[in-house]
Amino acid sequence: MLKKMNRGQVFLVGAGPGDPDLLTIKALRMLQSADVVVHDRLVSCDIMALIPAGVRRIDVGKKPDHHPVPQSEINALLLKLAEQGSTVARLKGGDPMVFGRGSEEAAVLRAAGIAVSYAPGITAAQGISAATGVPLTHRGLANSVRFITGHCQANRPLDLDWAGLANAQTTLVVYMGHANMQQIARELISHGLPQDHPVLVVANGTRPNESRLVTHLGALQIKRATIPVPGPVLFIIGQVVSLLDQTNSADTILQAPELQRVLHG
Amino acid sequence: MLKKMNRGQVFLVGAGPGDPDLLTIKALRMLQSADVVVHDRLVSCDIMALIPAGVRRIDVGKKPDHHPVPQSEINALLLKLAEQGSTVARLKGGDPMVFGRGSEEAAVLRAAGIAVSYAPGITAAQGISAATGVPLTHRGLANSVRFITGHCQANRPLDLDWAGLANAQTTLVVYMGHANMQQIARELISHGLPQDHPVLVVANGTRPNESRLVTHLGALQIKRATIPVPGPVLFIIGQVVSLLDQTNSADTILQAPELQRVLHG
Ligand SMILES: C[S@@+](CC[C@H](N)C(=O)[O-])C[C@H]1O[C@@H](n2cnc3c(N)ncnc32)[C@H](O)[C@@H]1O
Ligand SMILES: C[S@@+](CC[C@H](N)C(=O)[O-])C[C@H]1O[C@@H](n2cnc3c(N)ncnc32)[C@H](O)[C@@H]1O
Repeated sequence: MLKKMNRGQVFLVGAGPGDPDLLTIKALRMLQSADVVVHDRLVSCDIMALIPAGVRRIDVGKKPDHHPVPQSEINALLLKLAEQGSTVARLKGGDPMVFGRGSEEAAVLRAAGIAVSYAPGITAAQGISAATGVPLTHRGLANSVRFITGHCQANRPLDLDWAGLANAQTTLVVYMGHANMQQIARELISHGLPQDHPVLVVANGTRPNESRLVTHLGALQIKRATIPVPGPVLFIIGQVVSLLDQTNSADTILQAPELQRVLHG
Repeated sequence: MLKKMNRGQVFLVGAGPGDPDLLTIKALRMLQSADVVVHDRLVSCDIMALIPAGVRRIDVGKKPDHHPVPQSEINALLLKLAEQGSTVARLKGGDPMVFGRGSEEAAVLRAAGIAVSYAPGITAAQGISAATGVPLTHRGLANSVRFITGHCQANRPLDLDWAGLANAQTTLVVYMGHANMQQIARELISHGLPQDHPVLVVANGTRPNESRLVTHLGALQIKRATIPVPGPVLFIIGQVVSLLDQTNSADTILQAPELQRVLHG
């Protein structure tokens, strides 16, 4: 009984895409009431700066040898901290419930009897939608939106439902898509989307170093050199891209040489 | 020139699903710096309470005769207010860029030279995911998530890509689905999803009167009486529903007689 009362708890907190203004009030409060914050590489410095000075921070984005920390080690760390009685904020980029593995961590903790509570976060697609004026749905242009991952598990080939994805009435948002974008563009075209189907590519969305590029599937399917990406990159594919708000950003869009180089070689 | 400088601006602000804690910091700041707030019916009272006392509020959720205000009238109202020089917060439930018609309003304003800026909001799917522990994606259970609308435009029949939607590896979230859920369940089953494919139904998600029901497609396809829904209802369809966090909510889940009645007659 005593042991149970000593137990800590874990807050699974979404950090949003980078701009600290996009944190929810709940996320901010959880961050400011934790004893220890366990965070990923994707969380921006501006957000880390909101954590009170005395609070312990553990970066599980990379080990000292620069390899990523395996998920099983992260799970074990969270469990140990909570069992020691800490209130742990597990801080993740975007929304922990969207390609965030938050629910894998929660399952391990809940199975061990640790209470988990959740603060959702603005996911990259939403942050970039608000930053660019490109909606995720829009009457006549997109009656649905779909978030997919372009990342292959354990180096298996990308095995997606291409026929279902090649739907001109659905906005397709590709997370972790950079390495496989060429194949994705090729498959979408061969399953029926037009060459000139518009694509918005945004690196470091909502951050001071955000860069944007408007292109189309035909351009992305062309072979390119493999150049390291300048940060997290999101692809929004669909007719909604035509609604891009160019008011204050024409320069950024036309001058994204870094993205041009990365994507078009 | 003088005329241009007198012009107001419009903030398109996401209110999230209801819990005021889920507002972003940006949304809160925009709400608190507007001269006038134009809001929908879906925005919760707790959120309306955050608007400073002196600020004018205009409810465009319903006209005095209880009919909804047509979109063209809302567009004209926003334009008029901005042209009079006001800073207008256009407050919408969830995220204005997800089934929110925010981008239609923005298009009209931008075409008239009014500056529009955006604060994204936690969309209903994310708020409910965080409230229930049911993730939107999860390795092995869902490699993608899709948001669709179950609402038909202008009373036309629901014409969805059923074959593409009946994908057991994709979490399907249905907005505005209550009236057509029976048909949706029937079509998903006849296109290959199993009868026992799990569905989480949540009314008034993240609000004090939230109610939840776990069911399956087979039960939803059965004919039911048409009973008015007790508030906005969201359907999350997919294997991720098995991860529901029952820690503090077993009662709510088992005792949702209102939803039981609405859905199963
Ligand atoms: C492991 S996923 C995590 C997604 C996160 N949970 C979310 O909801 O946004 C990482 C991917 O998210 C996308 N992403 C996250 N933050 C981003 C940003 N600020 N700009 C562009 N893409 C971003 C990129 O596609 C990146 O490869
Ligand atoms: C016109 S759509 C607006 C969606 C909103 N822009 C968003 O991002 O959540 C209205 C639908 O959203 C869903 N919804 C919004 N708030 C909800 C809540 N608190 N609980 C359950 N469903 C909700 C319901 O399906 C409702 O019919």
